[in-house]
Amino acid sequence: MSQVTDTKPLGKSWREINQERKAMKRKRNEDKLLKQEKRILFEKEQEEKAKEEAEKEAKLADLSTVSIAIPGSILENAQSAELRTYLAGQIARAACVFCIDEVIVYDDIGDKIDTKKSKLEDVEGVKVARKSCVQLARILQYLECPQYLRKHFFPLHKDLEFAGLLNPLDAPHHLRSSNDFKYREGVTMNKNVKPGKGSQVNVGLLQDVSTDKLLNPGIRVTVKMLPLAEGSKKLKGKIVSLSTPRADTGVYWGYTVRIANNLSQVFSQCPYKDGYDLTIGTSDKGTSIDDMPVKGVNYHHVLIVFGGLHGIEAALESDEHLQVEEPSLLFDHYVNVLPNQGSRTIRTEEAVLIALTSLRTKLKAKTEPMVFNESGIATSSIFPTEKLITPNNSKVKNDTDLSKFD
Amino acid sequence: MSQVTDTKPLGKSWREINQERKAMKRKRNEDKLLKQEKRILFEKEQEEKAKEEAEKEAKLADLSTVSIAIPGSILENAQSAELRTYLAGQIARAACVFCIDEVIVYDDIGDKIDTKKSKLEDVEGVKVARKSCVQLARILQYLECPQYLRKHFFPLHKDLEFAGLLNPLDAPHHLRSSNDFKYREGVTMNKNVKPGKGSQVNVGLLQDVSTDKLLNPGIRVTVKMLPLAEGSKKLKGKIVSLSTPRADTGVYWGYTVRIANNLSQVFSQCPYKDGYDLTIGTSDKGTSIDDMPVKGVNYHHVLIVFGGLHGIEAALESDEHLQVEEPSLLFDHYVNVLPNQGSRTIRTEEAVLIALTSLRTKLKAKTEPMVFNESGIATSSIFPTEKLITPNNSKVKNDTDLSKFD
Repeated sequence: MSQVTDTKPLGKSWREINQERKAMKRKRNEDKLLKQEKRILFEKEQEEKAKEEAEKEAKLADLSTVSIAIPGSILENAQSAELRTYLAGQIARAACVFCIDEVIVYDDIGDKIDTKKSKLEDVEGVKVARKSCVQLARILQYLECPQYLRKHFFPLHKDLEFAGLLNPLDAPHHLRSSNDFKYREGVTMNKNVKPGKGSQVNVGLLQDVSTDKLLNPGIRVTVKMLPLAEGSKKLKGKIVSLSTPRADTGVYWGYTVRIANNLSQVFSQCPYKDGYDLTIGTSDKGTSIDDMPVKGVNYHHVLIVFGGLHGIEAALESDEHLQVEEPSLLFDHYVNVLPNQGSRTIRTEEAVLIALTSLRTKLKAKTEPMVFNESGIATSSIFPTEKLITPNNSKVKNDTDLSKFD
Repeated sequence: MSQVTDTKPLGKSWREINQERKAMKRKRNEDKLLKQEKRILFEKEQEEKAKEEAEKEAKLADLSTVSIAIPGSILENAQSAELRTYLAGQIARAACVFCIDEVIVYDDIGDKIDTKKSKLEDVEGVKVARKSCVQLARILQYLECPQYLRKHFFPLHKDLEFAGLLNPLDAPHHLRSSNDFKYREGVTMNKNVKPGKGSQVNVGLLQDVSTDKLLNPGIRVTVKMLPLAEGSKKLKGKIVSLSTPRADTGVYWGYTVRIANNLSQVFSQCPYKDGYDLTIGTSDKGTSIDDMPVKGVNYHHVLIVFGGLHGIEAALESDEHLQVEEPSLLFDHYVNVLPNQGSRTIRTEEAVLIALTSLRTKLKAKTEPMVFNESGIATSSIFPTEKLITPNNSKVKNDTDLSKFD
């Protein structure tokens, strides 16, 4: 009994000691249970979060989109190399101002004996196309790319000789290093990482971000910035799809560029699974836009096609794959976006702004993200929406510094 | 009785002779009466014609108008002399496409120590103004002027150094010599004319036109072409007011240019007797254009003001004459023409096209001329109209070769 005696504190009976020990054991068990419960709760939360994210991704895959198709030949009529560049910049700005998802640059003239060709990598891979189409596409890509990434993706090129003259897009995804936003565009860096770790990504901040996926260096990625761990100064992020930022926050996240070698490819190489469900052709020979009912035309993936100097008519004529007689037969709607115009001609770069402004009141998206105005109040997007994907408002408002989009 | 016997024809009795004489006298009287009636009818017709013309002129004086005000300082942000010129051309084209009646170029910065000034003759006479305002106004005037008259009104000038890069307006009053139209713009020539005759006017045809008024040489005039007299090859015309062609035929006939040295002059120097009866300011801080009722805002003389790089706010701040706190207080409507824009900024040259497109469906003119579409069917004008001034349709259709406005 000597051992027990050793541990018996002074002034306490064995009975008291045993009671205390039992109480402590009980508490330990309770703590264990609590911890277990907490863990289960945490796991559940994680599961729910993952489910939520998966749902978001599913919705995101189903986001309504607006595509515009522009003939590259419009650059051929510009009066100087500077103005050719400037014209491409006008198209890029119009696309950005109207939150366009996809810009298709198409060849409306076709192969002639002396057609000059050029190469470009678009969303579908490397393509050979008419020189003017390639230049328009390249400048569109250049302007869409955040400034801090341009040196990675746009080496010196004759097409970009006068890029210094271009007006910036001032797009919300062109973030400065001082801007605080949940998502950032970046480029995967060529840095050694520990096994099991993801790529380091340059997102335009002083420090690269550690991500969850290991990718080849030099790839453009969209990164969701994760909150800084306590005490840590290392930036961590998660690689997401290009459409996630808009689906999550409603903030416009730029356009993709696609080259079509003729008018039929504009339709046939549509990147959306079920194709464009609404197609609109613009022409002064079309029916008056005023005859379209207000908010009366529904779309999920709308395509709006513009003609060049000689209209969509010329594009149709030069395309051997299309056998229809009249361009109006190619589209669901063939509209004159400005009845009673005061000039005999409307230039393509003007038509884009005019058409998108007037179609804004006519079209209605099936699903589109919530958009916030300056005061943080949810409003409908550029094109009004039928049903809204509602993100967790309070969350988005906290995470998103919207003041800089004023 | 010998005299009588002398005149008596053979084989006729005096009775027959007297009857014949009476019949002849009766006929002479009847003819006289007929002539008199004809003359009265002709005079009446002339009176009615004059009355009709007077009525037309009265209606014409009462034609609804659209004015836009653009800050000249936008040229100061252009990146090269070529692009400065091109930007002015964009404004001119927008004004023409939307059938604008008056373009006001205003100074939104005001006099600073190093402000460079320049001189220009606008609708009100010679004015001294900010250099960029003068250049914008000069290029606007240059582009509005029919090509064949430019050598008379635009001597070589540094402001027009890159005018060769400008896109043409393709306005309906820029007639080629092969075009046949009831009205033509011209310049009075320095030719000796017979006393009582009017000036010879160069209207861009091989031959000058003899007009009804003797004016100093070198003045721009609008000429109504009179039908060629039978057998004559001499062209004759009547000098009319600048607004007559549009009032008569509905065809857009160009804009006037006015310089305002500050924002308040935009309002105070209005050329219309009772001023602007509807004023609209555009700003991303304004209320959403979507809140304006469709075809719900009536106007007779509407003024639409655009801001520069720093908005109308900056123009208000730099104007000592205006004591209001907020720009919204200056206007009947202060609107955001593109809610939920995808770019942080909309450039002024873009805003003009966007604003005029969306206002087209909101505004309603009190009086506006009839406009004909390609098929010669009368339609409403760019801005829909409350009551139409209906010219004699069949007449206008015959006189006017509308096919060239397709």
